[in-house]
Amino acid sequence: MIEQLNHIFYPKAVAVIGASADSKKVGFICVSNLLEGGFKGEICPVNPSLTELLGLRAYPSIGAIPGEVDLAIIVIPAQLTISAVEECVAKGVKGVIVISGGFKEVGTDIGLGLQAKLHDIANRSGIRIIGPNTLGVFNPMANLVASFQTSLALSKAGSVAVAAQSGGMCICIVHALINHNIGVSKVIGLGNRCDLDFDEVVTYLARDKETKVIIMYIEGLEQPKRLMSVARKVVKQKPILMYKGGRSGSSRATLSHTGALAGKHELYEAAFQQAGVITVDSITELVDITKALDLQPPASGNSVAVLTAQAGPGIVVADKCRELGLRLAEFSPDTRKRLRQLVSPLNAIDNPVDIAWKSDEFDTSLEILKILIEDDTVDALIVVAVFYASNMQLLQAVVDIAKYNRKPITVCLSSPRGLDAAQVDALEKSLIPTYPLPERAVTGLAGLVRYGEILKSTNPL
Amino acid sequence: MIEQLNHIFYPKAVAVIGASADSKKVGFICVSNLLEGGFKGEICPVNPSLTELLGLRAYPSIGAIPGEVDLAIIVIPAQLTISAVEECVAKGVKGVIVISGGFKEVGTDIGLGLQAKLHDIANRSGIRIIGPNTLGVFNPMANLVASFQTSLALSKAGSVAVAAQSGGMCICIVHALINHNIGVSKVIGLGNRCDLDFDEVVTYLARDKETKVIIMYIEGLEQPKRLMSVARKVVKQKPILMYKGGRSGSSRATLSHTGALAGKHELYEAAFQQAGVITVDSITELVDITKALDLQPPASGNSVAVLTAQAGPGIVVADKCRELGLRLAEFSPDTRKRLRQLVSPLNAIDNPVDIAWKSDEFDTSLEILKILIEDDTVDALIVVAVFYASNMQLLQAVVDIAKYNRKPITVCLSSPRGLDAAQVDALEKSLIPTYPLPERAVTGLAGLVRYGEILKSTNPL
Repeated sequence: MIEQLNHIFYPKAVAVIGASADSKKVGFICVSNLLEGGFKGEICPVNPSLTELLGLRAYPSIGAIPGEVDLAIIVIPAQLTISAVEECVAKGVKGVIVISGGFKEVGTDIGLGLQAKLHDIANRSGIRIIGPNTLGVFNPMANLVASFQTSLALSKAGSVAVAAQSGGMCICIVHALINHNIGVSKVIGLGNRCDLDFDEVVTYLARDKETKVIIMYIEGLEQPKRLMSVARKVVKQKPILMYKGGRSGSSRATLSHTGALAGKHELYEAAFQQAGVITVDSITELVDITKALDLQPPASGNSVAVLTAQAGPGIVVADKCRELGLRLAEFSPDTRKRLRQLVSPLNAIDNPVDIAWKSDEFDTSLEILKILIEDDTVDALIVVAVFYASNMQLLQAVVDIAKYNRKPITVCLSSPRGLDAAQVDALEKSLIPTYPLPERAVTGLAGLVRYGEILKSTNPL
Repeated sequence: MIEQLNHIFYPKAVAVIGASADSKKVGFICVSNLLEGGFKGEICPVNPSLTELLGLRAYPSIGAIPGEVDLAIIVIPAQLTISAVEECVAKGVKGVIVISGGFKEVGTDIGLGLQAKLHDIANRSGIRIIGPNTLGVFNPMANLVASFQTSLALSKAGSVAVAAQSGGMCICIVHALINHNIGVSKVIGLGNRCDLDFDEVVTYLARDKETKVIIMYIEGLEQPKRLMSVARKVVKQKPILMYKGGRSGSSRATLSHTGALAGKHELYEAAFQQAGVITVDSITELVDITKALDLQPPASGNSVAVLTAQAGPGIVVADKCRELGLRLAEFSPDTRKRLRQLVSPLNAIDNPVDIAWKSDEFDTSLEILKILIEDDTVDALIVVAVFYASNMQLLQAVVDIAKYNRKPITVCLSSPRGLDAAQVDALEKSLIPTYPLPERAVTGLAGLVRYGEILKSTNPL
């Protein structure tokens, strides 16, 4: 299976069945995306009425392509896909992505019948099918945009994999990752899942060296236990996050979309949580936790030190810590004594530690960070600052301490966007995740605490 | 009182007591911010050891300034502020902003004593004091940056007023408004509130023509009922949002910060909600609701139509609607019939309405929007799209309908940041608030529904 999927994610030659010269059509955009994305292998447009497209030689059928084809992208009407996939089997194609809709998701007998046929072909022949009714896949490591969604190519290469039942939600999640400077390893629209399903994808991503964090967007599964059993093992190596759509259940859109009944949300949540999956309630939460897991180690406990350059945001962070089940560390007497000598006498050294008036001193900031990190009562650290000239030394000290620190840190840096580019860049190059709002730095850290708990639980049920 | 505060927000001459030639000091930055902010009135640095600062004539004392002074910004150590404020009174200064800390917030007898003296001077003389321990104020209409926080000046002029007990949180909120393209009318750091408190500020903002929406960040109030009674009246004219810090209560930082005991969160929330104040749990929620209230009318009911170009994000929007107490409208038979003729037969017309495959047709998009808006079962509309070439006509149709529509609309446009600049710009110029994530478009709309309910409740208790 790993090798089969490698043919899809790292193909040498890709055919687009239903390639079109009409620049508005998906059949054109898919060819163009492969080209513009910088795919280095062969691209073979397939359309009996074309001899050439975008400078590429076009073929009347998949069988007419002289060399081997690893991956075929199919963008023709539903009723024509069956014979196209059969031709792919005959040609020895390893995997197909059926982008076309008109299958189980429309709820008609015809749609259901066509999807059942795709399933049968995959079962019988061994060819792997992604979709139908799918966004396609994106693999930045292979410059492969096997999708109609051009903006996927704007993702930077990184270590977060996204697998989603809905193409639209997949795009929303990838855009949010782009906007939060988080790189992706693989993006997979699973669509109606006539063949390839979450359990196999997660198994593949667990083995994928490029992937550190796995994100799933799920609306409903026919066999959730299969995925849970895979997830239970995989979370020992890599964190898995799940966002579940269709919670309200009664929505007819969910019932039909991507062809799976929406499960009962609470049951899903509880069962996946027991399997060690981190569940989230919004894309914001998903992105905040992902960013932390991508850059920082899991926390060994839930006791947090808050170091803030501004009292108010420190209070909001303390509030959010309690809301998310994190404890504010009660520092050791030695820590208190040492902090009292360094922090301005006007400011609090109880947790949060208010470093105001000293945040412009690099050595003092570094010393305070060290004291907090070395205190055994502290499992993790949140640093809070607004963009203000005198806070820059504090941020520099965080960059410095990242080198020899092994406890997780998240940073809130509040700033007009872009003004803080140099600071954010320096912090994130040192693997310190930054957040624009105090509450969100806590959400990120809470994810590291949760994953630490998952890893410690020797036998999650 | 209105006139007194007008002297502070629209001064003709501003003195900075404690002006400094050291560019790292607050006393320098405050003078520099007034200059760089483009303040057109007179700026008078006060410091006995300076004759000139940044090209401005400096004065040895406030009394030595020849003309009238409306506003004095005080940035000298706490123990020197009392005599400085006395001198301001003697000079006939109308208002002072005491930026200096070292008062009630430090919890010492000295600090408490100094603050009591400031309170007495204000009471006795009628001079108005903002602070102590405050960020200062910002009024874009007067190019007035009366604060050490330079980035405030990056806000565009608009109609959202921010009043905050904590300077740090005030800055975080203003940065978030900047990053979401929301303009401000007034920014007021209230600090320890020895004189000017929320009730008077809200009364002032209610009368302020520039202000449409009022944001408060509160940690604790000595006399919450005074503010509630003011708020109860003001919400009939303008929405008021409140974010309450120090919920966890036991945090020592809250106890001391800005000198007020943190109230019990639940009591506060319930009482302010009864007064018609919209309470929020995070800066993200605050900004999302503010953006909607700033641009759109309140909703006359909670029945929502969701029009989506992608099924998955539509489902997530439906989920979030239910979570926030919004109903998905059950369309009239006529609406269903007309939608069925326009929407692709493969797609749902039940709510959400899935406009996929038709979102590239301007006329169809506009027609569907009109049908939804004209249906009496619909109180408000959410439009959802990812950045994709064929969705641009749908977005253009939303811009078009904004002209003759009176039901509130919010839009989710998911995109890599900046790629959608033209669309966001066109939508927001037409007063349609855009959100980068599906859930957040619902949060915004829920704020419009909540404010509609507040306005309808003839006598909120």
